[in-house]
Amino acid sequence: MYRTHTCGELRKEHLDLSVTLSGWVQKVRNLGGMTFIDLRDRYGITQLVFNEELHKELCEKANDLGREFVIQVKGVVAERSSKNSKIPTGEIEILVEELKILNSSELPPFTIEDNTDGGDELRMKYRYLDLRRAPVRDNLVLRHKMGFEIRNYLNTQNFIETETPVLIKSTPEGARDFVVPSRMNEGQFYALPQSPQVFKQLLMVGGFDRYFQIVKCFRDEDLRADRQPEFTQIDCEMSFVEQDDILNTFEGMTKHLFKTIKGIELDYEFPRLSYADAMKYYGSDKPDTRFEMKFVDITEDVKDSEFKLFSTTDYVGGICANGCADYSRKQLDQLTDFVKKPQIGAGGLIYIKYNADGSVKSSIDKFFNADQLLALGEKFNAKAGDLVLILAGALNKTLNALCELRLEMGSRLGLRDKNSFSPLWVVDFPLLEWDEDTERFYAMHHPFTSPKTEDFDLLEKDPGKVRANAYDLVINGVEIGGGSIRIFNDELQQKMFKLLGFTEEEAEAQFGFLMNAFKYGAPPHGGVAFGFDRLVALFAGIDSIRDVIAFPKNNAGRDVMIDSPSPISADQLEELNIALTLKEK
Amino acid sequence: MYRTHTCGELRKEHLDLSVTLSGWVQKVRNLGGMTFIDLRDRYGITQLVFNEELHKELCEKANDLGREFVIQVKGVVAERSSKNSKIPTGEIEILVEELKILNSSELPPFTIEDNTDGGDELRMKYRYLDLRRAPVRDNLVLRHKMGFEIRNYLNTQNFIETETPVLIKSTPEGARDFVVPSRMNEGQFYALPQSPQVFKQLLMVGGFDRYFQIVKCFRDEDLRADRQPEFTQIDCEMSFVEQDDILNTFEGMTKHLFKTIKGIELDYEFPRLSYADAMKYYGSDKPDTRFEMKFVDITEDVKDSEFKLFSTTDYVGGICANGCADYSRKQLDQLTDFVKKPQIGAGGLIYIKYNADGSVKSSIDKFFNADQLLALGEKFNAKAGDLVLILAGALNKTLNALCELRLEMGSRLGLRDKNSFSPLWVVDFPLLEWDEDTERFYAMHHPFTSPKTEDFDLLEKDPGKVRANAYDLVINGVEIGGGSIRIFNDELQQKMFKLLGFTEEEAEAQFGFLMNAFKYGAPPHGGVAFGFDRLVALFAGIDSIRDVIAFPKNNAGRDVMIDSPSPISADQLEELNIALTLKEK
Repeated sequence: MYRTHTCGELRKEHLDLSVTLSGWVQKVRNLGGMTFIDLRDRYGITQLVFNEELHKELCEKANDLGREFVIQVKGVVAERSSKNSKIPTGEIEILVEELKILNSSELPPFTIEDNTDGGDELRMKYRYLDLRRAPVRDNLVLRHKMGFEIRNYLNTQNFIETETPVLIKSTPEGARDFVVPSRMNEGQFYALPQSPQVFKQLLMVGGFDRYFQIVKCFRDEDLRADRQPEFTQIDCEMSFVEQDDILNTFEGMTKHLFKTIKGIELDYEFPRLSYADAMKYYGSDKPDTRFEMKFVDITEDVKDSEFKLFSTTDYVGGICANGCADYSRKQLDQLTDFVKKPQIGAGGLIYIKYNADGSVKSSIDKFFNADQLLALGEKFNAKAGDLVLILAGALNKTLNALCELRLEMGSRLGLRDKNSFSPLWVVDFPLLEWDEDTERFYAMHHPFTSPKTEDFDLLEKDPGKVRANAYDLVINGVEIGGGSIRIFNDELQQKMFKLLGFTEEEAEAQFGFLMNAFKYGAPPHGGVAFGFDRLVALFAGIDSIRDVIAFPKNNAGRDVMIDSPSPISADQLEELNIALTLKEK
Repeated sequence: MYRTHTCGELRKEHLDLSVTLSGWVQKVRNLGGMTFIDLRDRYGITQLVFNEELHKELCEKANDLGREFVIQVKGVVAERSSKNSKIPTGEIEILVEELKILNSSELPPFTIEDNTDGGDELRMKYRYLDLRRAPVRDNLVLRHKMGFEIRNYLNTQNFIETETPVLIKSTPEGARDFVVPSRMNEGQFYALPQSPQVFKQLLMVGGFDRYFQIVKCFRDEDLRADRQPEFTQIDCEMSFVEQDDILNTFEGMTKHLFKTIKGIELDYEFPRLSYADAMKYYGSDKPDTRFEMKFVDITEDVKDSEFKLFSTTDYVGGICANGCADYSRKQLDQLTDFVKKPQIGAGGLIYIKYNADGSVKSSIDKFFNADQLLALGEKFNAKAGDLVLILAGALNKTLNALCELRLEMGSRLGLRDKNSFSPLWVVDFPLLEWDEDTERFYAMHHPFTSPKTEDFDLLEKDPGKVRANAYDLVINGVEIGGGSIRIFNDELQQKMFKLLGFTEEEAEAQFGFLMNAFKYGAPPHGGVAFGFDRLVALFAGIDSIRDVIAFPKNNAGRDVMIDSPSPISADQLEELNIALTLKEK
């Protein structure tokens, strides 16, 4: 037996007990006559003591141990003279009587401490060592716990976890598929699923009623910082439901997670904000509602102004930053530079300071007198000491820039605390998006999303105005999940395909088997999918999903630890009936 | 709201309640004046009643409903006059007041009943309809429950469920990999994992201590009846453990499953049978121990016989079938034909009848007198009324044939009840297998399996004799899982690679990053993997894993429902830098 206890387990109640521990050498401190070792495993750190006087040889052996050696010790639990209140085992230590080296270790390329000296690249290459660090491991333990509680909740709600296939069929719509050549079916390919969408709908046709799966999905995209070619989804679908049934069920799941994982009771109904209002007040369909600072649209109020920018533009609007009237020239310049960054793209920033002394000072004093500015201030509900920041320009671009400015001000004012959580549902998304380049409508969610019954008559008259039974769960400005009520009627589905510019043949080729399934009594159904990686990252209080994945890939889609992808043998290629067509470089 | 209750929920306590139900029309019975409909959903069947006198129009509408139409009804719960004790809702029915057709259905290609008229091919093509049948759905609900209880158990045992990557690296050893061309890394490929073996070992190096995952694995094999290109594994690994720790932990998991899922208490320690004894007594490393009928080796007893077959052969052995002395000529001929089938390959079958009247009759009366036969009978512990069946020939082939004969006799005697379960551990597997064709040793389990300490000295002297710390869990003759204690010492691992005929370069190329990881303090560790599909099939009492998979593939690796694999577009091929090299047919 390698151990009687873990390194996180022993307390004062175990005094005088003979124990066996195993673990890694975190630190060796030779104090002359006495040697102390911090022994580490997943469960904690326990201090080992070697007394030179009592066990000379043993103590010398201990002094020779290197960092990350794996050892087994036998000894007796004793009370520490100088206690360490920072760790749960801090009141005791082990007086070691036997020491066995289970494995040696070369010097690790970076320190295995909470704050390591290793850079990103190095830690990715030696991921198995990085995983030994408590902050990295804690994220993955959190992930385990969250998966477990999600399953607990959905099980009590009668959901059946059902595995759908990984080797499926390529469909040209949407993002790029990863494909898998089939050896047994010459010239043919499987595709890896971007989501189990079609299968979960088939399970509803199959009468499963409530389905879920925590499942790997795949997307062959050019990777951005926070994307991975393989990611994990909490995929769910329900039959005989309307939108409210789904929102209530998964609001319940979210509350269950906050309660069981973080001890936070969200004892209120999540706000439900229409897409239109989300855009109007926050310039985003995933607003960070940890703080107010809603947009105020003053386009109409200033359209007769002599200030050309205001009178000739689409949209003028701003936000009110409480208590920021004392911002310096430099601070205002920083904000101006911020909004003028290419990725934000505003032309400039207008400010109005409502000073604590009642005076008003603005960058548009030339065009507005104090009374006019005070009148504007009322629109923003600005009080003495507040700063109003205004942007003007083309509607969408300006809303977008104002959104970024609002988030920046939220951060500056400390209103975006990682330990505070503000969930909401964004609902009533548009059914379709017009694409200027291809001059056609695309499904905003996917082609099976049901339009709202009350907007049916707009489908032919004004498709862009049709709202969908689609919804997103947003927490702290992060889109955590989204879904929709599906079309389950063949006729309506055909109409949708037509709107989306599919010929009958194309629709048949891509979705034929689903359409066929719908002919045999499809029930009303709808669902939702949550980004599991992102949800865990939110709970962990970190920004990148990479930190909640055990073995992530880098931005080029490579696993630098195992050095993958890699060339395969000529035999393998031949068996698969494919050849490389490498481009000249 | 589509329903107030499900179709499996209403009882006598709900009498007079107004309810709304939704579901599928299972059956319409027009009895003239009264129409009865069986309404079905996942949860059960509820009888609907339409009274022509009270609601003429409604009743006519009901009479027009086809099978598998999706409907919603409102009505009142009433007591049935003729109760149906076979279903939980059999005491009540719904007097329908409103009927809404939610969706129509074409006539399904087969009946949606427990016993359907649909053939295998048709049901695979319309799998979403087959899933509506209770026996099919029940298997998948069972699968969900088993997954849930496995997670429950392992969570209480401090295991962390950790997702390992699906896009990994191809290694030429073992079965064929499915590969995935990388668009972003020209000319390079990912591989889909045959198991997360390497990653779970890296997690142990990373200090995760206890890992598990219920995970899809992939093998590009020529498919046999009971293989699928994608299958699911319960994959587990533990650190600081010896073989017994692993057996005890997963024996606990198995008992937990039997108790929670089937209500069976296995309150004994699972037998542990050495590989050598399994072969000796059952001719198989996965013996069905629901019944005894162990092999008796009589080679030595008959080697001086005048019967040439006995005196010149490797092995003579048999089994004793209790109470079968009255087998007819015809029955014995059937058994002879059975063992002579090409896939079993015995030359013939020898029998000795120990008749109830004390007489003895055998097919070798010419060579053995009654006393000799009685003496042989003692070896088999044969009593009056028993039948001894004997095979003779080359050792392995004969053990194998005798194994098949034993199973056949077990089946004939009704000793292989699907509701009785006999688990055991087979231990002490040989470390290596000699392959005659390539004239080299192969790892029986995999190259990281640790030899038994007491056999270390045989490694160079007689490698074929070395036993491994490897074990299988066998239940009712099915290999449910297997695993081993791993080598965690670099030096021993190098020795193993040498034994397996790897050059240093080959070992480095294939396992370099694992070897590298082992340099930084790998803990002692070991693990096990269970075939989840097979485990569910065992619990469901069915033979094929296909029946416990929601969307299985056929023997050609095709999903005939979605018609996959399929050709991909020229654009896709070009982006991936590959071309087809179709062979002439």
